[in-house]
Amino acid sequence: MFREKIKVLDCTIRDGGLINNHDFDIRFVRAVYKALSDAGVDYMEIGYKNSKKLFSEKEFGRWKFCDDDDIKRVTEGIESNTKISVMVDVDRVDEKDVKPRKDSPVAMIRVASYVKDIDKAIYLINHFADKGYETTCNIMAISKALDNELNEALQQLEEESKANVIYIVDSFGALYQETTEFLVKKLKNFVKTKEVGMHAHNNQQLAFGNTIEAIIHDANYVDGTIYGIGRAAGNCPIELILGFLKNPKFDIRPILDVISKEFIPLRDKIEWGYIIPHMITGILDEHPRAAIALRKSDKKDNYREFYESLLRVDED
Amino acid sequence: MFREKIKVLDCTIRDGGLINNHDFDIRFVRAVYKALSDAGVDYMEIGYKNSKKLFSEKEFGRWKFCDDDDIKRVTEGIESNTKISVMVDVDRVDEKDVKPRKDSPVAMIRVASYVKDIDKAIYLINHFADKGYETTCNIMAISKALDNELNEALQQLEEESKANVIYIVDSFGALYQETTEFLVKKLKNFVKTKEVGMHAHNNQQLAFGNTIEAIIHDANYVDGTIYGIGRAAGNCPIELILGFLKNPKFDIRPILDVISKEFIPLRDKIEWGYIIPHMITGILDEHPRAAIALRKSDKKDNYREFYESLLRVDED
Repeated sequence: MFREKIKVLDCTIRDGGLINNHDFDIRFVRAVYKALSDAGVDYMEIGYKNSKKLFSEKEFGRWKFCDDDDIKRVTEGIESNTKISVMVDVDRVDEKDVKPRKDSPVAMIRVASYVKDIDKAIYLINHFADKGYETTCNIMAISKALDNELNEALQQLEEESKANVIYIVDSFGALYQETTEFLVKKLKNFVKTKEVGMHAHNNQQLAFGNTIEAIIHDANYVDGTIYGIGRAAGNCPIELILGFLKNPKFDIRPILDVISKEFIPLRDKIEWGYIIPHMITGILDEHPRAAIALRKSDKKDNYREFYESLLRVDED
Repeated sequence: MFREKIKVLDCTIRDGGLINNHDFDIRFVRAVYKALSDAGVDYMEIGYKNSKKLFSEKEFGRWKFCDDDDIKRVTEGIESNTKISVMVDVDRVDEKDVKPRKDSPVAMIRVASYVKDIDKAIYLINHFADKGYETTCNIMAISKALDNELNEALQQLEEESKANVIYIVDSFGALYQETTEFLVKKLKNFVKTKEVGMHAHNNQQLAFGNTIEAIIHDANYVDGTIYGIGRAAGNCPIELILGFLKNPKFDIRPILDVISKEFIPLRDKIEWGYIIPHMITGILDEHPRAAIALRKSDKKDNYREFYESLLRVDED
């Protein structure tokens, strides 16, 4: 029997935006919103809410800012139960830009934070919760967190924050099932009044396996993207999540359609997925930036040399 | 601490042969053998041992037959501790073609069998064991096996066969971690005097996750292929297995090298991997043949129509 509490969040446009400068056009984003709505996906994360004082609209596409008017151009005229989410980064959002929930097309705001910034994250979470939004805290690079610092952050999130969900974010695609199990159990232990979420990256082809592992241990919020799009190795393919979950409200067919029509042609223009340099940063638990740089160079397929260069950095 | 009993078997040429008519040239197979030897991989499965009375050498490449002389052309002059394995299928091998172990370059013979053919498989296993070979039984399409029939087959394998290893073969890429755990525990329970092996397919990007799951529950033989090559969605990428295992005898670097030099160019000529029709047969627990046929047609990217056509077959 299916677990009704499981919610699926799609972050195709938000995480995919990291590889195209957040510059998806309105037609494409409407096609994604329509597919997710028809598929019964619970949330669609449409981009970041960044301050225009810090980032230029000339340099970045609209989904780095997520103006309410742009969101409405996507959603209007499409029948949907899919709620809109935006992500904010600590130190990059001007919280005064965000209207109260009742005046906004956004339902959920997710605050991405490293463990060290948890006090700033809690301030933002509570600010947005007070404005009426559902809120989450997405703990980035959790595979690098020291246990005592993570424990303290989780304790604070439980006691001081109004977040509805605390997310494990495997930013580097470094987790295995046993680590995932350890972390989900830890979160369930510390944040007893909140839900646990899983955001996996696919460097080692474990995004889906780790998401299943998180579900087994009672995480109820899971992230995916269409055809796994996302920075570097990408994310957990949402079509796999929908193929796995048994809730009859989900329908994989609209996702299959939009992959055929939009994502196969897109994958010819920008790359993501199982690419060996991203696999290498995953097994070494490193940020993907070195691999992303390599893929733009003429050494993009020199895997052994790349691997050895990262080992030398580690020796410093 | 690493588990010394874990053995890694590469079946790049054998399973990869299913997508190129077993027609890899000697130069390529030597490059693979050299890389696996340098990487410390325990076994290399080089092809099938089929009867030339049943299959024509004009129609199929040499790795459908695996003559001893061809194997020696691959291995000679390369320093190696990697043992050679060949696979045989029930009803396709003429066991008289196989010389005694002491006169052969082959160390291990793996007998692939459906549950229904287990008596024939046991006959072959014992025949080859008596000739001095290490032997395994690879139970194909195990995701479709009825529990009572599987139990009986396992009981027979334990009591009547001389096989060293009994393999779970997820032919359709349909297993999840919980099913994998269930099956490994079942095998450990029935075949107490033998090792358990895992051969995973990657239709749902779970080949590596399920292989880890099998290891967690004490499977000690795991299969992989370089860059995941294999029929349809392919197999568990051996570079991921080597990145995961802690035994210092393994070295991932020769595998990275051979991927750069041989497998990236090859992937431009023949396809395998995460391709949506193969994902669809995986979630539906079906043989990949319909998806393979689709990929050769002009409807190769009509995913929704393909999915719906399989659902209609299921209604028959």
